[in-house]
Amino acid sequence: MTILHASAELMAAVRARNPLVHHLTNYVTVNDCANITLAIGGAPIMADAAEEVKDIAAVASALVLNIGTLNTRMVDSMLAAGKSANANGVPVVLDPVGAGASALRTATVERLLDQVRIAVVRGNVSEIRAVGGLASHVRGVDAGSMDADEDAGRLAASVARRLGATVAVTGPVDAISDGKRIVHVKNGHPELSKVSGTGCMCTSLVGAFLGAAPDKALEGAAAALVCMGIAGDIAFEKAGGLGIGSFRVAVVDAIGAMDGETIMKRGRVDEARD
Amino acid sequence: MTILHASAELMAAVRARNPLVHHLTNYVTVNDCANITLAIGGAPIMADAAEEVKDIAAVASALVLNIGTLNTRMVDSMLAAGKSANANGVPVVLDPVGAGASALRTATVERLLDQVRIAVVRGNVSEIRAVGGLASHVRGVDAGSMDADEDAGRLAASVARRLGATVAVTGPVDAISDGKRIVHVKNGHPELSKVSGTGCMCTSLVGAFLGAAPDKALEGAAAALVCMGIAGDIAFEKAGGLGIGSFRVAVVDAIGAMDGETIMKRGRVDEARD
Amino acid sequence: MTILHASAELMAAVRARNPLVHHLTNYVTVNDCANITLAIGGAPIMADAAEEVKDIAAVASALVLNIGTLNTRMVDSMLAAGKSANANGVPVVLDPVGAGASALRTATVERLLDQVRIAVVRGNVSEIRAVGGLASHVRGVDAGSMDADEDAGRLAASVARRLGATVAVTGPVDAISDGKRIVHVKNGHPELSKVSGTGCMCTSLVGAFLGAAPDKALEGAAAALVCMGIAGDIAFEKAGGLGIGSFRVAVVDAIGAMDGETIMKRGRVDEARD
Repeated sequence: MTILHASAELMAAVRARNPLVHHLTNYVTVNDCANITLAIGGAPIMADAAEEVKDIAAVASALVLNIGTLNTRMVDSMLAAGKSANANGVPVVLDPVGAGASALRTATVERLLDQVRIAVVRGNVSEIRAVGGLASHVRGVDAGSMDADEDAGRLAASVARRLGATVAVTGPVDAISDGKRIVHVKNGHPELSKVSGTGCMCTSLVGAFLGAAPDKALEGAAAALVCMGIAGDIAFEKAGGLGIGSFRVAVVDAIGAMDGETIMKRGRVDEARD
Repeated sequence: MTILHASAELMAAVRARNPLVHHLTNYVTVNDCANITLAIGGAPIMADAAEEVKDIAAVASALVLNIGTLNTRMVDSMLAAGKSANANGVPVVLDPVGAGASALRTATVERLLDQVRIAVVRGNVSEIRAVGGLASHVRGVDAGSMDADEDAGRLAASVARRLGATVAVTGPVDAISDGKRIVHVKNGHPELSKVSGTGCMCTSLVGAFLGAAPDKALEGAAAALVCMGIAGDIAFEKAGGLGIGSFRVAVVDAIGAMDGETIMKRGRVDEARD
Repeated sequence: MTILHASAELMAAVRARNPLVHHLTNYVTVNDCANITLAIGGAPIMADAAEEVKDIAAVASALVLNIGTLNTRMVDSMLAAGKSANANGVPVVLDPVGAGASALRTATVERLLDQVRIAVVRGNVSEIRAVGGLASHVRGVDAGSMDADEDAGRLAASVARRLGATVAVTGPVDAISDGKRIVHVKNGHPELSKVSGTGCMCTSLVGAFLGAAPDKALEGAAAALVCMGIAGDIAFEKAGGLGIGSFRVAVVDAIGAMDGETIMKRGRVDEARD
């Protein structure tokens, strides 16, 4: 089965299973994460109190840890939630927002990776480089550029092997790798980078897909990025001329209407081996 | 006066009095709560620091306590704000988001109900069942289903009598009861359940209506749900075909334009006695 | 060069330099602040942990301190971030949301003004009166009215001299002053006051302009308010008839498309001396 066929099947699984996606996430884009989770067919629950995260993570379909606005209390809750998820077979997705931008963020990512078994890490090039322990030039949480001779796919594969997790690098072309297979997703529009939260929303989508099929980390992460990329393409066609406020609304419209047929028709994906 | 006439009159009162609605609420949908409060004609103020909540609750027109993202600090602030509101004759509205989903949430609701006099509790079926001490099957914060033979109106009336408060249960048909009278609101579209925060926004609207008429808890809660239901109907007619991002924008449009005439023309309400 | 020409030039500078705007802000409108910063051509980073704010403020282009939802932890972080910004030549913008509405807010503003060198303070009339130590009648965070015989420009100039900072007062007519020059901005539509976060977004825009040209506080603050005012004008023309949800989306559209030509054609600005 091609990766596109797998994406289409997983899309149907998300709609059918309505996975409960527990988020410990930042207060900047949390509303976007809730709405995109609903739009793709999941059920979001945001809860970060130390007193309750274990209970909730234990019964969730997937757990999303997003470090966009860290603080000490949140880190403790993330560790507790992550361990509970691990103990209960709930897949964990990590969004290392701004890793490399401060010592706190880099150190927190290291603690999370050390103490929690992560199924998928989703970030931009700078963040994934930081997570992989590679030199990174970080500027803001949304920035990130590659050297001309660098390849996102090789980066994803390399960091995936180092972490023992699936790694998804988003950018002009997205790359997802489990260390062996590399999937490139060519959908998406540059306008997505002008909307706050599109990265976080990708991670929430990964959570929804893994919640529907926990044993398909590579396929689920790829499906999530295919969906967001296609949504960007559709949104730009419909609302690009109106401006980025309208474009943002149209992205949610497109995710809400996403289905296997749209994925098969519009997805632009290829797969390689590293 | 019928409940629909009362709703129309209260709508005018909200626009005329511009009630100041103090929220201690979750960080997921707080922006939606602020915007819907403005749209209906109120003035939102979000403040949760222990040092200031007493001062602000004392001069507010209404106080909304929403436990969507709890933590220990927030619970203390909610208790302090609630007591200040009670001491100053400011009506308090409680949204027990996710009650039953964790011990923390259930215990917090109990503490709030024990120490603060609540005018209206607004939740979905699962949450209201949990608040009423009834067996509840909770899954996520937005979920909730009734047994086929259960009636939202009877649930609202029963829990209202137990709590000595007006109870509003939102769902396919909303039910509001003060323990004696039961109002059913049949407006609203299923699409509302695909947008994060529509429940929280209902609660904020209840706050605005109670802020304009503190002695009319049943009528105010009913008016709030009539407004949201009609807004859902109008939004679906205008934007349902575009998708849920556009639908969400259209809900705010419709609340911003709500008036007594629209309520009289489109409201679908009946009233009974338990 | 007229203030309008300066605004147009600064607009180009923001687009060219993509200033990194570090925010310590409230959780109500933080997403709006992020999106408007992106829309105008800046790069937002929201970070408030004591452990990281110094590092991030030191490398930012501008720092925005917005006290919309204060707590003790946040105040400490604001002081640390502000001092780091000062030590590194990074301009600091203060939004004293709700100053005068609680002792905590007023005291926090005093501490910030005492310990951090602020380049621009942006608030409504009530807030600026409170910041200036003048009697203020505050009701909610968005309220604020002037006595009939009061002039926003004279208020801005007076408080600017007292604080040694540029002061921007937003309202039906905006006024910006460094204590000597007074700029009035006559763009903007009353509908802006029905959308949560438009004040906060103005402050974020000031941050973006100061980030692109740190030595032009008066011009940058004026340019920011010209942009928001024009965006309100354009948005009302395009979406005013649809409602305030649509209007809000159109404001972001208009900021995203803002350029020097639009500023020169639509800006309505005059300048005086106090």
